[in-house]
Amino acid sequence: MSEEKMGLKPEFSDPESYRGRVPFVEYNHMEITKVSPDESEIRLRVNPDARNLMGQVHGGLICSLADTVTGITARADGRKYVTESATVHFLSNVSEGTVIARGVMIRRGRKTVLTRGIVEDENGRLLADVTISMFCITA
Amino acid sequence: MSEEKMGLKPEFSDPESYRGRVPFVEYNHMEITKVSPDESEIRLRVNPDARNLMGQVHGGLICSLADTVTGITARADGRKYVTESATVHFLSNVSEGTVIARGVMIRRGRKTVLTRGIVEDENGRLLADVTISMFCITA
Amino acid sequence: MSEEKMGLKPEFSDPESYRGRVPFVEYNHMEITKVSPDESEIRLRVNPDARNLMGQVHGGLICSLADTVTGITARADGRKYVTESATVHFLSNVSEGTVIARGVMIRRGRKTVLTRGIVEDENGRLLADVTISMFCITA
Amino acid sequence: MSEEKMGLKPEFSDPESYRGRVPFVEYNHMEITKVSPDESEIRLRVNPDARNLMGQVHGGLICSLADTVTGITARADGRKYVTESATVHFLSNVSEGTVIARGVMIRRGRKTVLTRGIVEDENGRLLADVTISMFCITA
Repeated sequence: MSEEKMGLKPEFSDPESYRGRVPFVEYNHMEITKVSPDESEIRLRVNPDARNLMGQVHGGLICSLADTVTGITARADGRKYVTESATVHFLSNVSEGTVIARGVMIRRGRKTVLTRGIVEDENGRLLADVTISMFCITA
Repeated sequence: MSEEKMGLKPEFSDPESYRGRVPFVEYNHMEITKVSPDESEIRLRVNPDARNLMGQVHGGLICSLADTVTGITARADGRKYVTESATVHFLSNVSEGTVIARGVMIRRGRKTVLTRGIVEDENGRLLADVTISMFCITA
Repeated sequence: MSEEKMGLKPEFSDPESYRGRVPFVEYNHMEITKVSPDESEIRLRVNPDARNLMGQVHGGLICSLADTVTGITARADGRKYVTESATVHFLSNVSEGTVIARGVMIRRGRKTVLTRGIVEDENGRLLADVTISMFCITA
Repeated sequence: MSEEKMGLKPEFSDPESYRGRVPFVEYNHMEITKVSPDESEIRLRVNPDARNLMGQVHGGLICSLADTVTGITARADGRKYVTESATVHFLSNVSEGTVIARGVMIRRGRKTVLTRGIVEDENGRLLADVTISMFCITA
């Protein structure tokens, strides 16, 4: 019997396990494409509802991509985390195409983790550099 | 003839002037309730689409409220701004009710502004403390 | 018998209690002028050793003032804290005179505190706006 | 005649060019060991004057190392920069030995640069992860 069938696989260890579980993420059309404790990925096809006053991706949505993808990376160890702080530097922006966010683990401590969110356009141009700390709430 | 009719009133100087102009803000049900160069306000009635994995307001949406409301405060001087950086500290959260975000001007420089986003629940409990810098793109 | 004589007064509740205890702070001529769990104060008379390449106060020293003064505010409750994160926005600078740093408590939680460091010149002009989170290490 | 003799080499392109120029850096015993527009390095031998209340390296000095080394990386293109903002995450600390700070260029824009400061102990353990933005003041 496989580890997976025995329930030994952590709860949020693949994109499928998130389906229907995070309303804000689905409502805003974010697609979880990779789940890993080292580096996860989310993709967003820019649609009209994603846009700010200037017709580009709203900064809040860029933050949301980074917060979500780094949270996925944190939780891929099977524990629960809440975000403590996020610092976002906005470097460029797009009005169409696909935005790709990667959540990279920088340091996994016992109670806190430090992660980086890298948000790029489909040509690999850096849109935002994000640093996010999270706190583990699993006892 | 009034200043407003002569076009002397800055473009984004009241909530009405934003109506239908910021798709992401409307799609996510944020309501601009006060516009001022000193302190603006947005309200969000927490609905199912606002929620994260734990049934509370998604951190990205809290960032979005802060980014939007501080941008409104910056632009109330009639000039255009883009967000450079945002630092968010998440302190508490709610799963229902109304979230109120205020955007306070800290220092309005010639090219850059520093603002604070204060996000609270309807009882005045602090949910997030946010510091946002913006760059003026009006020549 | 007074509370103070009975040892009920927290350890770091006045400027005197820090004397000779923080080498970096004394070496860099920071003077602790007020200790309070709500708002503490440090003063720095700008001397040659404080200067950067442009003859103004080094940004690292401005960070140091903010980190120190907010730590003093945190510890004024008699518990021990370590700094988790600091975000500094540099707004102006001086090459002489006195720099005053205030450490203001924003939210004192059970395990973490959020504080603001306000650094000004002697005319009350804002030099830096700093947000610092700390973690309590007293069991 | 070499480029260097003709003055075509940028002003701050090697450690030697900083000698005697940055009082705070020398007063606090920071040693500039590598200058490059991509990644510079500073070393600090922990001495008594570097210590905080707990006998470890003062957080402000860790900020100072990061601010200085990223500034060196920025200026290695021959232009002048001032620091706009810094976000520091403190992860570990030491009370003796050598601390090494590297300043890595993340994105060099026309007017602003985004850099990372990586502060480690002599065994390569991460002490602080720092993100610093700077503004070019050369016309």
